Amino acid sequence: MTATTRDHDDLAYDVFAKACPSRGTLEHVTGRWGGLTLGALYEGSLRFNELRRRVDGVSEKMLSQTLHALERDGLVHREAQPTNPPRVDYELTALGRQVAERLLSLIHCVEDAMDDVLAARARYDETRGGL
Amino acid sequence: MTATTRDHDDLAYDVFAKACPSRGTLEHVTGRWGGLTLGALYEGSLRFNELRRRVDGVSEKMLSQTLHALERDGLVHREAQPTNPPRVDYELTALGRQVAERLLSLIHCVEDAMDDVLAARARYDETRGGL
Repeated sequence: MTATTRDHDDLAYDVFAKACPSRGTLEHVTGRWGGLTLGALYEGSLRFNELRRRVDGVSEKMLSQTLHALERDGLVHREAQPTNPPRVDYELTALGRQVAERLLSLIHCVEDAMDDVLAARARYDETRGGL
Repeated sequence: MTATTRDHDDLAYDVFAKACPSRGTLEHVTGRWGGLTLGALYEGSLRFNELRRRVDGVSEKMLSQTLHALERDGLVHREAQPTNPPRVDYELTALGRQVAERLLSLIHCVEDAMDDVLAARARYDETRGGL
C-alpha cells in the first residue's frame, strides 16, 4: 500500500512483502480451517467438539493445530475449567473479534456472489471447451 | 448462519457446509496467492509481469494458475490486446472489486494488529517454554 492510501509510514507491516510476519498471520486467519474457526467462534464461545461439528469436515488434529496457531497469535482465548473431566472453552479475544468481523463480511460477500460465480464458471468452461 | 443473522433462506450458500461450492471460491479468494493478487489488482489493471513483481515471492506458474481460477470465478477479467508482441492486462470485474474491498479491509486489519500479534506470540512461547 502506498502512503496515500494508508495513514501510517513505510515502517508498517505489509502483507505484499515476502518476509513480513503479517503474511503468516493472514494465512492463519484465511487458511482453510482458520477462517471457518474464527467465523464459528464469532457467534459465541464453543467447546472443542461443538466447534468440530460446526466446522464441517475438519479433523480433530487439524482443528487442534488451527486453535493453537490462533491462540498463539492472540486471536483466540482457551479457558480450561478445573472440573472432572476438564471442560475447555474457546472464545475470541477482542483482537480476534475485530479480525473475525472483517472475515465474516468477506465470507458473506462470497456466499452472496455464488450465483454469479457459478454462472461465470459455466461461461468460462463453455468458451474454453469450444476452442 | 441462522435465519436471524442473515436475511435469506436455508437454500443459501454456506461456507460452513463441506459440500457448498462457496467454500472453493472462498479458498481461491483467500488462498496464499489469490488474496494478494486481488489486493494488488484493486489498485488498477496490471500486466502479468507487473503483478508478479507486486505479489512478492509468487512464481510464474503459481500466478498463472491463480489468475485462471480467479478469471473462471468471474472475479478477474483478462484483456488481450492484438499487438505484436501481444499485451495482456488483468483487471478486477465489478464482482472482483466487491470481494477485494472486503479482503483489503481484512488485510489492513491484520497488518494493523501485528504489534499485538507479535506480543501475544512472545507471551505464549514464554509460558509454554516455562512449563
